[in-house]
Amino acid sequence: MTLVIRVGPARQTWWLEHMTTLLPELDVRLWDDPGPLEAVKYAVVWKPPAGGLKQFPNLEVIHSIGAGIDHILEDPELPAGVPIIRATGDDLTQRMREYVALHVLRFHRNLPALEEAMPLREWRQSVNPPAYERKVGIMGLGNLGADCAKALSVLGFDVAGWSRSEKTIDGVTTFHAPEGLDAFLARTEILVCLLPLTEETRGILNTSLFDRLPKGASIINAARGQHLVDDDLLDALARNQIDGATLDVFHTEPLPAKHPFWEHPKVLVTPHVASLIDPDAGGKRIAANLRRFIAGEDVPDMVDLSRGY
Amino acid sequence: MTLVIRVGPARQTWWLEHMTTLLPELDVRLWDDPGPLEAVKYAVVWKPPAGGLKQFPNLEVIHSIGAGIDHILEDPELPAGVPIIRATGDDLTQRMREYVALHVLRFHRNLPALEEAMPLREWRQSVNPPAYERKVGIMGLGNLGADCAKALSVLGFDVAGWSRSEKTIDGVTTFHAPEGLDAFLARTEILVCLLPLTEETRGILNTSLFDRLPKGASIINAARGQHLVDDDLLDALARNQIDGATLDVFHTEPLPAKHPFWEHPKVLVTPHVASLIDPDAGGKRIAANLRRFIAGEDVPDMVDLSRGY
Repeated sequence: MTLVIRVGPARQTWWLEHMTTLLPELDVRLWDDPGPLEAVKYAVVWKPPAGGLKQFPNLEVIHSIGAGIDHILEDPELPAGVPIIRATGDDLTQRMREYVALHVLRFHRNLPALEEAMPLREWRQSVNPPAYERKVGIMGLGNLGADCAKALSVLGFDVAGWSRSEKTIDGVTTFHAPEGLDAFLARTEILVCLLPLTEETRGILNTSLFDRLPKGASIINAARGQHLVDDDLLDALARNQIDGATLDVFHTEPLPAKHPFWEHPKVLVTPHVASLIDPDAGGKRIAANLRRFIAGEDVPDMVDLSRGY
Repeated sequence: MTLVIRVGPARQTWWLEHMTTLLPELDVRLWDDPGPLEAVKYAVVWKPPAGGLKQFPNLEVIHSIGAGIDHILEDPELPAGVPIIRATGDDLTQRMREYVALHVLRFHRNLPALEEAMPLREWRQSVNPPAYERKVGIMGLGNLGADCAKALSVLGFDVAGWSRSEKTIDGVTTFHAPEGLDAFLARTEILVCLLPLTEETRGILNTSLFDRLPKGASIINAARGQHLVDDDLLDALARNQIDGATLDVFHTEPLPAKHPFWEHPKVLVTPHVASLIDPDAGGKRIAANLRRFIAGEDVPDMVDLSRGY
C-alpha cells in the first residue's frame, strides 16, 4: 500500500522522511516516483497537476496539505467519488487569528499613516476611536472565521460575521445567505475575507461588493486569490471607495514581479503566510487522519463534497 | 469657587466650554486667566509649569489629564499635601490594549521584514512560530498592564508580567520585585513597558536590562520617555542585542526632528498615541471625579502619593 506525496520541491525530502517515520506501515513515496500505480491508495497533495490523480486506479483518499481543497477540485479530471480530507489544526487557527488581529489593528490604528510620517519626522497626533466604535466584518464563519471573530470581539471590536448558512457566535452579530449580505456590508468598515473558494464565492470581492461598503473601508483577503477581482480593487482604491487592502493570496503565487499590487501605496502584500501549515504539526495531523481513515473510523477533517469545502 | 484648566493651546477653548457645561456650579477658567488666585480650589492640568500650582493658596485638589501624574510631580515647588487624582477609564484601557496587541503582533509576525520585501517585489515566505511559542513580557501590572496581559493571553501568547508588588492574573506568569526581574527578563522575547514613572523606574530600560533579555528581543515602550536611556537602546540595536523597538513616548515631545530614532531602520516612532485621552469621555470622567471629591465621597482614581503613582 503506497502513499504518494506531492509538495513543493523545497520540502519534499523532509516530507518523505517525516511521513515515513509517522506511517511506517505504508510505502511512502514522492509524486514523481510513485512505484506501481495500482498500489497507490493514499495521496497527500498540494496543487496536484491536472489529470495527475486519475493515474492511480485504486486511490482511496486524497489528503489536502492545507485547509482549502480548491487546489484539488480545480483538476478537471479529478477522479469522482474519492473522498477528500483537509488539514485543520490548532496551529492553523492560531496563526490565522494572529494575522487577522494584526491587520485589523493595523488599519484600525492607521499604522500606515504613522509609518509614512516617519521619514518626514512629523509628529502627527490624533485620537482614534476605540475598537468598540469600529465595525469589523468577517466573511466566512468556518473554524478560522469563527475563531477570528471571537478574538476580535475580545480585543474590543464591534464584530459581525457573514456565512452561507446561519451561525451563532457569542459577542458577534451574524448575517447569512445572499439576502444578508447587503446589511452586513453596509455596516463593515474593515472587511476580512476567510471564505472557502467555491463557484459561489469566486470573484465575490468585486466592484459591486466594494460599493456596498461604507466609503473608505479597508479589506483583508486571507482566503484565496480567486475571491478577488484584482482590477476591481485597483479601481476602488483609485476612487477612494476602498482606502487600503492587505492581501495574502493571489491569482498567481508567488505574485508576479510586474503585478501592480507590489508597488501600490495602499496595498500591503504578504506572501501567503497568514496561516502556513507547520510541516511538523501538520504532518502529524495528516498522518493521524489517514490512520483513522484506514481503520474505518470517523475523520473529523473529512470534506463534505456536497458543499465543496 | 474656581476650577483652572491647563492643556495644550490647540484644545483649550474646547476644554473650557466642555468643563463649563459639565460643572456649571464652578467658575471654570483657563490657566492664563485664573481670576483671583485665592478663589482657585481645583486644577485640571497636563504638564503644569514649575512653580505654577503654588500660586493658588487655597488649592484643594489637582486632577491630571492622563493616567500618569509624573508630569505634575516633576514640579519642584509642587504644593505639599494637595491630593492628586488621575484620569482612568475604559477608553484609555481599550486604546492601550489595541496599541500593545498591534505592536506585539507586528514583531511576532515580523511585519517589518514583509514590508521591506515589497519594494523589492520579493516573495519571502517563512513559517513563524505560533503565538503560544512566543514569550511576551509586560512590565507594570496596573490597570493597563493587567488588561494588556490578559488580551495577549487570549490572543494565544505565552505571557508573563513583572510588577513591584505581587500580582495574580489568570493565564499570566507573574514575577515581582527587583528579585524577580532577572527571571522575567531571561524568558521575554518581546518586552512591553507600561510602568509608572517613579524614581525606581526612571531609566530602567538601559544596557543592563537589555543584556538580560534573550539576544534579538524586541521592546515596546508605551509608558514614559524617561523610562528609556536612548543611547543605551541605540547601542543595543547596533549590537543586535535588541532587534527592534516601538516607541510611543520620548524625553522631549514632540520628538525633535534631529533625533536619531526618526530614521533608525529598527525603530518605529509613534507620536504618543498609544492611549490618548478622548477629550469628550475623559472630560466627563474628570468632572465626575471632581464632583465626587467636592461632595466628600470616595474617588477611585485618587492617587496614593506614598507610592508615587
